[in-house]
Amino acid sequence: MNILVTYDYGDVFIDKVNSLGYHITYKSEKQLLDDDLKGVDILICYNPFSQLSAAAYCDLSHVILSSTGIDQLPEAIVRSDHIKVVHNRYGYAAPIGEWIAMMALVGFKRLDRLYDQALARRWKMATDVLELTDKRILFLGTGNIAVQAVQRLKPFGIVPIGLNRSGRANRHFAEVYRVEQLGDVVGSVDAVVVCLPQTGATHHLVDGKVIAAMRDDAVLINISRGSVIDEAALMTALAKGKFRFCALDVVGEEPLSEESPLWQFEQVLITPHNSWVSEYRNARRLEYIMENLRRIKDGSALLYAVDPKRGY
Amino acid sequence: MNILVTYDYGDVFIDKVNSLGYHITYKSEKQLLDDDLKGVDILICYNPFSQLSAAAYCDLSHVILSSTGIDQLPEAIVRSDHIKVVHNRYGYAAPIGEWIAMMALVGFKRLDRLYDQALARRWKMATDVLELTDKRILFLGTGNIAVQAVQRLKPFGIVPIGLNRSGRANRHFAEVYRVEQLGDVVGSVDAVVVCLPQTGATHHLVDGKVIAAMRDDAVLINISRGSVIDEAALMTALAKGKFRFCALDVVGEEPLSEESPLWQFEQVLITPHNSWVSEYRNARRLEYIMENLRRIKDGSALLYAVDPKRGY
Repeated sequence: MNILVTYDYGDVFIDKVNSLGYHITYKSEKQLLDDDLKGVDILICYNPFSQLSAAAYCDLSHVILSSTGIDQLPEAIVRSDHIKVVHNRYGYAAPIGEWIAMMALVGFKRLDRLYDQALARRWKMATDVLELTDKRILFLGTGNIAVQAVQRLKPFGIVPIGLNRSGRANRHFAEVYRVEQLGDVVGSVDAVVVCLPQTGATHHLVDGKVIAAMRDDAVLINISRGSVIDEAALMTALAKGKFRFCALDVVGEEPLSEESPLWQFEQVLITPHNSWVSEYRNARRLEYIMENLRRIKDGSALLYAVDPKRGY
Repeated sequence: MNILVTYDYGDVFIDKVNSLGYHITYKSEKQLLDDDLKGVDILICYNPFSQLSAAAYCDLSHVILSSTGIDQLPEAIVRSDHIKVVHNRYGYAAPIGEWIAMMALVGFKRLDRLYDQALARRWKMATDVLELTDKRILFLGTGNIAVQAVQRLKPFGIVPIGLNRSGRANRHFAEVYRVEQLGDVVGSVDAVVVCLPQTGATHHLVDGKVIAAMRDDAVLINISRGSVIDEAALMTALAKGKFRFCALDVVGEEPLSEESPLWQFEQVLITPHNSWVSEYRNARRLEYIMENLRRIKDGSALLYAVDPKRGY
């Protein structure tokens, strides 16, 4: 079977893959063209799709994504009945879990304001610095990333609350609600963390109504996809001074342009889709890729298979 | 017995104290004079000492400090054989434990650089963002504050290492070393957190030699007292680019003047002795003060008594 990989994982990786009986070639994601995918069975990539046409994927049997999100998949793959897709389900959960904990701490303590003071060489103790103890933190989505964050935040004494489609109880969360209950529960929490994948159902789930129902001093953290939040409604609320702190690692259109009005708010910290980065990212990615290549050879069930039609 | 309190904890507190059979008066710390302490048995305060003379304390039997540190005590109290001192041993350990966790996250991830980028409206993903997983973090001092930090950081997968006078094993730490071993162990760790009280023995414990032995990419966090670090030696090292990140919540001379060269370093974040602040600070303080007032009435052992001669 032929593999095309769009990231240079080095010779050791190439040798390992070849020793499994594959034939692997490398071409960088940005330079990929339709012709490169001729005769390719397995595509290992993140997002080379924008410069490829629907016809490019006809020989593919598998797509192994380096990302956790799958929203970059083109319709030609989503609608295909013969292409199986796996995603890097756990590969970034640990650093993103850490990131959520960091932003909760920065937000409740408003470290950003103290950082502004330090830039101005100003020593003035802040009194509005809060603890995480007893804070009710609502996680939209109760998957790996939310669980990784909860596991790290539990010793801080938070009350972790989950929200998902079923509302089924989950040992990591003190309470779990159904997505239909969002409007009711969101006003009772100190912080909201968006951990949902981008799908049709999650698009603008956090809309003007949900934002209005949130407490004015709530902390809002988004580490999944910008599209889950209605950014126009968010900006309207921010302009009125809503939210204690708002940490956005993802936005509706990335990269965020210098002209975006989203940069201007004192209570907002925008980071450039950075929460997943870790010195372990390649090692964890390669482990999951190699395991799937072994399973494809064996004909056994894939690791972290996704349903592109469902969207996660 | 007569009590003088230098912070206005409100009428409910005053009533509670009077109901124990005390006579309590309030005068603000800044306005306190020698005469105010005439006939006062119990002084509840933080640091009114600079404007008082040694003779002011002759009637005192107890000092109840609102602080954890006791280094502000004047010699007249330290050398006194009849004044008992209690300190707020646990009152700030939780928020300071949180603060240490926050600064470890900010330091390993270098969130400060991403904050600089946000100020410049620049979206550029950083690749040098590290995880806490497997990081060896050395705590100088293994008391309450260090333990509170370790309890919160354990689920991040850190390896907590302790250092104290005895080197005795402690269930919260993977390894514990004696203070004499500092120079040997400090080069093997990814981060150093200073949690030691200010005493003669801890003065400049982190000197030029210890700093030289530390890894160039280490994270350094100080939440206790500036005097534990030789600031001149620190600045010499910082000027050469040493340290991945350095979070100083305390400095040698507070408030730090605008002219201090310490502000200038890109890898340093100075905060204004803020780590202890929390919305629970008064409630916890009052609990410990009331408990000691009850114990003084009963003649039972004091809560969190310190030895002013030993210095902690």
